[in-house]
Amino acid sequence: MSTMPPSLRVRRRLLLGPGPSSVHPRVYEALARPLMGHLDPLFLEVMDELQVMLRQVFQTTNRLTLAVSGTGSAGMEAALVNLVEPTDEVLVCVNGVFGGRMCDIVERLGATLRRIDRPWGEVFDPQEITDTLRSHPNTRLVAVVHAETSTGAHQPLAEIGALCHEQDRLFVVDAVTSLAGTELRVDDWHIDACYSGTQKCLSCPPGLAPITFSDRAVERMGERRGKVPSWYLDVSMLRDYWAESQRTYHHTAPISMNYALHEALALVLEEGLSARFERHARNSTALVAGLSALGCRPFAQEGHRLPMLNSIYLPPDVEDAELRRRLLEDHDIEIGGGLGNLAGRIWRIGLMGESCRRTSVLTLLGALEELIGSAAGGAATAAAESVYGEMAAEEIRS
Amino acid sequence: MSTMPPSLRVRRRLLLGPGPSSVHPRVYEALARPLMGHLDPLFLEVMDELQVMLRQVFQTTNRLTLAVSGTGSAGMEAALVNLVEPTDEVLVCVNGVFGGRMCDIVERLGATLRRIDRPWGEVFDPQEITDTLRSHPNTRLVAVVHAETSTGAHQPLAEIGALCHEQDRLFVVDAVTSLAGTELRVDDWHIDACYSGTQKCLSCPPGLAPITFSDRAVERMGERRGKVPSWYLDVSMLRDYWAESQRTYHHTAPISMNYALHEALALVLEEGLSARFERHARNSTALVAGLSALGCRPFAQEGHRLPMLNSIYLPPDVEDAELRRRLLEDHDIEIGGGLGNLAGRIWRIGLMGESCRRTSVLTLLGALEELIGSAAGGAATAAAESVYGEMAAEEIRS
Repeated sequence: MSTMPPSLRVRRRLLLGPGPSSVHPRVYEALARPLMGHLDPLFLEVMDELQVMLRQVFQTTNRLTLAVSGTGSAGMEAALVNLVEPTDEVLVCVNGVFGGRMCDIVERLGATLRRIDRPWGEVFDPQEITDTLRSHPNTRLVAVVHAETSTGAHQPLAEIGALCHEQDRLFVVDAVTSLAGTELRVDDWHIDACYSGTQKCLSCPPGLAPITFSDRAVERMGERRGKVPSWYLDVSMLRDYWAESQRTYHHTAPISMNYALHEALALVLEEGLSARFERHARNSTALVAGLSALGCRPFAQEGHRLPMLNSIYLPPDVEDAELRRRLLEDHDIEIGGGLGNLAGRIWRIGLMGESCRRTSVLTLLGALEELIGSAAGGAATAAAESVYGEMAAEEIRS
Repeated sequence: MSTMPPSLRVRRRLLLGPGPSSVHPRVYEALARPLMGHLDPLFLEVMDELQVMLRQVFQTTNRLTLAVSGTGSAGMEAALVNLVEPTDEVLVCVNGVFGGRMCDIVERLGATLRRIDRPWGEVFDPQEITDTLRSHPNTRLVAVVHAETSTGAHQPLAEIGALCHEQDRLFVVDAVTSLAGTELRVDDWHIDACYSGTQKCLSCPPGLAPITFSDRAVERMGERRGKVPSWYLDVSMLRDYWAESQRTYHHTAPISMNYALHEALALVLEEGLSARFERHARNSTALVAGLSALGCRPFAQEGHRLPMLNSIYLPPDVEDAELRRRLLEDHDIEIGGGLGNLAGRIWRIGLMGESCRRTSVLTLLGALEELIGSAAGGAATAAAESVYGEMAAEEIRS
């Protein structure tokens, strides 16, 4: 080598975009623990414990619950590729980028795609789905995004789940951004396949996709006419690799990432799901109050806004790219821009997992006040502080 | 939570199995560096630098060179799913587990599979491939495993590559175990798609699959009749995500794993490829000498044995599972057992990347002498030491 290879250059950022979120020091420590073989009895224990903790976080008793060795999008593909055959009719509800991605995957699988659309930022009414299913009685599977990361819309699931259950359709839910940040009851809501990513409210680096399948989904997979088109994501083999006894070699699991997920899940369970959901709701309320003082209106449909992904119209007279560049370069804060038609019109501000803290909210609002100009005059942080104050008073009273 | 979540239990092992291999402290340190967003300009630099370093390690100028966000098997699937269409005829050379896996993937893609077999442990003669291609002139793609991790066989590639090139067949090579451990010349050998894993001779934790495609392969992908069946592994989109200008969002790359790969590649290039190859050859020679003193015969075909994956028949009168359990529990050393028919008959001893050190060889041989009994009486370590001594003398003389 005549030239030295480049050094790795990294800066510490406050991650308030659509993911990844900031990572707890214990998770970094887990990542860097000594590698063991993927068939080492101690690593098999790690896999067993991961399954137990994932079931708790998904609020399910599903036996088939594991972490796919890819990112959240691999989880999406794993859910669909195992459950959809070319002869199937599939209904996908699209109100943002990720519903659109599900359609793309269903089409690649050669199935008949039925797609219903809502404007970006809005959610689906269960009645729409009932009506569609009435006119398409052969629909085998219904797919919905719980937390549309591209819009900040929060889709209610319980009624759609009950409907699918009654009518014996498979119900597939994208919970990439919602898992561990807001209520998600896989069993109570009759969800047959639910996948997530590690880099959102679990606050683990990206690289794994937690996934769970109901017994009904497993039964359907057993009835497939053809092999799953993807070898890597074939759940019938992944299941044997993750089996709690008599494991069968499939691929080599990303050991270090599984260590990190183990620690991230432990942190979630130590905090407790309801406390964690409440924390996400509280910080989001304070952030939105502060942003409103800066003249930012929320983008997503009222009453259906995600706490961990706050989509807002840009403040008046602000240039998107320039402001986000300065936030990143001068303040080491990342927030997300809009996707597709929403580019330059909205911001997507994530308050996920470890990033979802009072200090994050106040740090971001302070930086925005500074960058947008003195007109704001501390009003944003004051508005957020006032929300926190009221909440504290509420807590003392109750 | 009524019960505390489990703590992560990890032990430091000497990893001398078929992978993962031991990891350098600098790579652990890289893994644990602060997470940045996957669209952060600094992370985009990391991706650019990764591509430059991967090209050096693959010995290629291929523009389309990147790390797939999955393990080595995802790399195998990515190579085949992008290059094979259902109307294609594909020739796969099978002399172990991984050739068999390629067949499985080709069949799932609905293509016409032509398979030739050699007994496990042997390699293919280019003449066999010439003959097969003569009788099957429509073969579009030839797939071969360079380093069969299940057998330790080292397949020569140059002649097969030249043949495929002349006849305009695509040449796909599995280099999961060989990359950065033995000579692999993607350009000189006319390889059209070559993939690897991070956890073998790159000594990075598992989780990414380095891959490179020739311009000819890229051209063929552009002529596809249908979409690539896998959304997650569709290289036409991965290419835009890894593009050095105007990146298009696809999935969220496993940031921390990419940090680790960056550092692992830097270590490879600092050492230099030829010094690294020589180190793998040297330690393998010493290991095999030591094992032979214990009565172990090599399994793979003479003259075609991999340096980083030493397959050997078990020593006489040794019980496989029990001995490997004691190696692991009493000595914290992992070695691999045989797969399929070879279970209980051979061991697979990896000397990959950071694990490929004189101390590893002597530590393992010492432990085996102790476990197999005093009959060996230090003969194994002595035999290895003598090889190292001769080599040192050779070096002084030259």
